[in-house]
Amino acid sequence: MPDMLGPGRRILASQPFSVLLGAELLHFGEGKAELRIPIRDELKEQHGFVHGGVISYAADNALTFAGGSVLGVDVVTSEFKINYLRPVQGDSLLARAAVVHRGRTQAVCRCDLFASEQGADRLCATAQGTIAKLATPSEGASQTN
Amino acid sequence: MPDMLGPGRRILASQPFSVLLGAELLHFGEGKAELRIPIRDELKEQHGFVHGGVISYAADNALTFAGGSVLGVDVVTSEFKINYLRPVQGDSLLARAAVVHRGRTQAVCRCDLFASEQGADRLCATAQGTIAKLATPSEGASQTN
Amino acid sequence: MPDMLGPGRRILASQPFSVLLGAELLHFGEGKAELRIPIRDELKEQHGFVHGGVISYAADNALTFAGGSVLGVDVVTSEFKINYLRPVQGDSLLARAAVVHRGRTQAVCRCDLFASEQGADRLCATAQGTIAKLATPSEGASQTN
Amino acid sequence: MPDMLGPGRRILASQPFSVLLGAELLHFGEGKAELRIPIRDELKEQHGFVHGGVISYAADNALTFAGGSVLGVDVVTSEFKINYLRPVQGDSLLARAAVVHRGRTQAVCRCDLFASEQGADRLCATAQGTIAKLATPSEGASQTN
Repeated sequence: MPDMLGPGRRILASQPFSVLLGAELLHFGEGKAELRIPIRDELKEQHGFVHGGVISYAADNALTFAGGSVLGVDVVTSEFKINYLRPVQGDSLLARAAVVHRGRTQAVCRCDLFASEQGADRLCATAQGTIAKLATPSEGASQTN
Repeated sequence: MPDMLGPGRRILASQPFSVLLGAELLHFGEGKAELRIPIRDELKEQHGFVHGGVISYAADNALTFAGGSVLGVDVVTSEFKINYLRPVQGDSLLARAAVVHRGRTQAVCRCDLFASEQGADRLCATAQGTIAKLATPSEGASQTN
Repeated sequence: MPDMLGPGRRILASQPFSVLLGAELLHFGEGKAELRIPIRDELKEQHGFVHGGVISYAADNALTFAGGSVLGVDVVTSEFKINYLRPVQGDSLLARAAVVHRGRTQAVCRCDLFASEQGADRLCATAQGTIAKLATPSEGASQTN
Repeated sequence: MPDMLGPGRRILASQPFSVLLGAELLHFGEGKAELRIPIRDELKEQHGFVHGGVISYAADNALTFAGGSVLGVDVVTSEFKINYLRPVQGDSLLARAAVVHRGRTQAVCRCDLFASEQGADRLCATAQGTIAKLATPSEGASQTN
């Protein structure tokens, strides 16, 4: 099996916004991806919890990596939906995504998001979305992640 | 009509993540909110477009402000869904959200997102979600934004 | 402008499930579609309101017709999301869908659903989804509506 | 453990629309529900596959039963999202829903939908949604299923 983690980490490192947020790729394999974001004050909202936008970023990007693992490198998120379940606090935010169904040009993926504190993970949000192969640039119909 | 923009801007300024992203509140009134994020390199992905996570942040936060304008200050995003339509580039990202229906404890809102370049706005994503009144802290079932 | 309503009605009449539900196509044009379902007891749930499944059918099918109006006849619903706002009762259920963005192979559409009673329409649900051009049958990755 | 299947089947039998579609409750327990709809011609679209509206009905209702199993009998679907993965044909449609997270007033659930043919089940759609406890009738903000 080819090593996907190295190339995956290089892609993540080439996304300035992922660098700004401090995202790390923990796992990346056929149909799966796991991102980790260490929680720091800059990522919070006014009540001291992690901002929902950080969680939606993590869902979006983990979904995209999972879909990209089966469709190829150049993919875009067409759409996704997220349900927030609990406020997020702790040491880090984990986003674990997996492909549910792979078609010819797109993959439907799910992502569970966990607040990790002292080694215990607690489900805090769950997402579902569609990742599409990128058409040639002039055809791009969706946001490139 | 009371001035809502001032208080709204103070809430936004109290969200460290919104400060990190450089978000500004352009409009805030009964059932409506508009956020603006000046586009800078730190907010991009590897192809030079604005990262989808920035767009989902803007949708999430604009939906929350719109819902909060009719439900009260302490609200949370329960869930939302976003469709990405086009890659985002230009001067700034605009997120315009409005309440579609207001219930007793929650509001359903929509948000259109535009890439603004030299004064022209282009629709690039659209979102729909549920904003809920925050219960007492111990009952919080959803992410606090 | 070519008459789209006639051909649209023939498609609707060729869907046995739409016939079972009594759906009618009121309007069908470039980027728009409106379905009407007269409310009868068979379409209700245990409390006397129209069943959510009837509403989701109407949203799904109106979205598909709207998308099909710009993409061509053979389209499928890839995905959609619906928020229920109020219980539905009255004379009929109306589903008004419109294209928000048209890409090369798919269209993102929205649909507002109304309960109509004695001529007054009341918003009762709202939906958003993706309609895709049907690939050749062997490639079909999504549900054909 | 109390028998939930009998009461669940009585609720399903009291929904005229579920009777019209021929839905059966196969399993119903703490946090789980499985519906089965035998496929017949009346449930199809123009290409001979099961209509997407039947699938969205099954998702909606299975999500509601799963949520109701932990929240109590009087619940409503607030919202859900569905991705269609494959055309549905065969002997029956199965909808298997489970609670992902239970809050005080609402539960987030997922539902996988399968086309069953000669004993083999094939994933054909997947859904995620929010089920809410029904407030007193005058407060009802969502569709009652």
